[in-house]
Amino acid sequence: MILSRTSSLQAFLSIPLLLLALVSVAVAQTDPLPSWKDGPVKSAITDFVAKVTQDGGADFVPPEERIAVFDNDGTLWSEQPVYFQLAFALDRIKAMAPQHPEWNDTEPFKSVLAGDTKGLAAAGEKGLMEIMALTHSGMTTDEYAAIVADWLKTARHPRFDRPYDELVYQPQLELLAYLRANGFKTFIVSGGGVEFMRGFAEKAYGIPPEQVVGSAGVTKFELRDGVPVLVKESKIEFIDDGPGKPSGINNFIGRRPIFAFGNSDGDQQMLEWTAAGPGARFIGIVHHTDADREWAYDRQSHIGKLDKALDEGTAKGWTIVDMKNDWLTVYPPAK
Amino acid sequence: MILSRTSSLQAFLSIPLLLLALVSVAVAQTDPLPSWKDGPVKSAITDFVAKVTQDGGADFVPPEERIAVFDNDGTLWSEQPVYFQLAFALDRIKAMAPQHPEWNDTEPFKSVLAGDTKGLAAAGEKGLMEIMALTHSGMTTDEYAAIVADWLKTARHPRFDRPYDELVYQPQLELLAYLRANGFKTFIVSGGGVEFMRGFAEKAYGIPPEQVVGSAGVTKFELRDGVPVLVKESKIEFIDDGPGKPSGINNFIGRRPIFAFGNSDGDQQMLEWTAAGPGARFIGIVHHTDADREWAYDRQSHIGKLDKALDEGTAKGWTIVDMKNDWLTVYPPAK
Repeated sequence: MILSRTSSLQAFLSIPLLLLALVSVAVAQTDPLPSWKDGPVKSAITDFVAKVTQDGGADFVPPEERIAVFDNDGTLWSEQPVYFQLAFALDRIKAMAPQHPEWNDTEPFKSVLAGDTKGLAAAGEKGLMEIMALTHSGMTTDEYAAIVADWLKTARHPRFDRPYDELVYQPQLELLAYLRANGFKTFIVSGGGVEFMRGFAEKAYGIPPEQVVGSAGVTKFELRDGVPVLVKESKIEFIDDGPGKPSGINNFIGRRPIFAFGNSDGDQQMLEWTAAGPGARFIGIVHHTDADREWAYDRQSHIGKLDKALDEGTAKGWTIVDMKNDWLTVYPPAK
Repeated sequence: MILSRTSSLQAFLSIPLLLLALVSVAVAQTDPLPSWKDGPVKSAITDFVAKVTQDGGADFVPPEERIAVFDNDGTLWSEQPVYFQLAFALDRIKAMAPQHPEWNDTEPFKSVLAGDTKGLAAAGEKGLMEIMALTHSGMTTDEYAAIVADWLKTARHPRFDRPYDELVYQPQLELLAYLRANGFKTFIVSGGGVEFMRGFAEKAYGIPPEQVVGSAGVTKFELRDGVPVLVKESKIEFIDDGPGKPSGINNFIGRRPIFAFGNSDGDQQMLEWTAAGPGARFIGIVHHTDADREWAYDRQSHIGKLDKALDEGTAKGWTIVDMKNDWLTVYPPAK
């Protein structure tokens, strides 16, 4: 019964599929990546996609295996002068301060409230972790999502005076859409908090929540007045960075990607893991070379350090995007 | 550029969509759930699906939010006389025994090798955990996948003398296909090992790896002769059972399901979490009542104990499947 239904469905669908094929031909005549400058980087992308989608070709990959993974910070949106999730956390400390008068005399909060970046830097990683834990736990997942949504609506980036979720890269938006139009399933695989990223990933990138892989804290199921809630605890469950990225891919996606894009040494193992699979692979790195339109940083940067992965990518012929030269536009126009 | 391309695509696609709508009308005349007996349980399913897919209706749910989650053991396939993943582990101990002569004198291995179920039971949960850890770690993820694939090909269930992955429930296969045909995204959310389940989920259920949520061990990224591998360690990263299921759903899927199916108290929190969302919900429980065609067990069972969730489901009017009466068929025909 099921089988015969499927067959008749297929018969009906062959007409739409034929039309779709005609559409594809029509679409091929417009440039799907207008913000990418013509040249070897752009060609590396389009050649790869053409190759793996050519039915019957030597490098053909069936649609269900067309998994593309993107780091987020520095790959899909900016990450300077601080990771945007840290900017969120610092704003939260300020918002929560009236309920915590003791913070005026306690580091790292004192420095945050005084806008003292040197004092904050002196608090080191321990201080940052304390800020992240405090601002990302002690509420339900629904409450947290509402806080993130509110922040995205109201906060403005200090340099560009735009909402943070507008500082996404226009060329990457085009690339995501282009990959999906070619049967790829696009995922974020990022060190950022998975629930934080889900606050904007669907709207900003068209990536649904179930295709966002990130770092996660432990959540605890509770009944509050008979209503089930998940409470965010300060304990970390999984860090999706560096060697954690292949583990995250294995655990969440369960298939090795054929396409991976990163921008820092924290992406190196994800790029290696993707590259090591059989058949055609695309490995891309965003090199931040554009101090005018965005930022220029690599080997010496505390944020998004790109050193070992740049050497490996150069040696292995991975596709390295020179932001200044390869991207005609960086951000989409203001809304 | 992207926008205008999307618009012309949509214009072209409206013709196929129209045809698809006609197909839907035609399909509605055949029964998508032929193994479900006509009656209140089957109607609860079809009424729910009709309701949430009726465009413009009060209970309409957009396709991207049509998330359906299924427990695996006892909900999609059988779980007696022991969880199939435990049967796999016991078979592995036997296969590995020649390299471990010391096991002949060491519990719990001695009992496993002698087929002494009482001795194995005496080893308790600690013994079982040792067996699970030993058989699920110490190899790469690729090696493990090959071992599982080989076992599924060769092992036979003791009662039915069929491969384990043929002991899936025909009514649930129809239900999964029916939900997908109605725009649902179907997920497994199970206490079983996520990598074990991915060994059969796509072939058996049509559920791709990235839609399988399960318990997971820690994996470690390593370069072996320059080749990246993920090594399975014996440390547990996440247990996707009981109150862990809502956490797993939150972490992996990031959206609250509108449809959930389970069969035991280990599913209770997942069912509660799903039921507590706004709008129309479907909550189903498979009650194992069929000793002739499958097994009959509930409140007193050590495997798949169904006690508190049965009381809650009865009190709240969840859909409780009486396997003996509601399912016309249990397993698909042998291949």
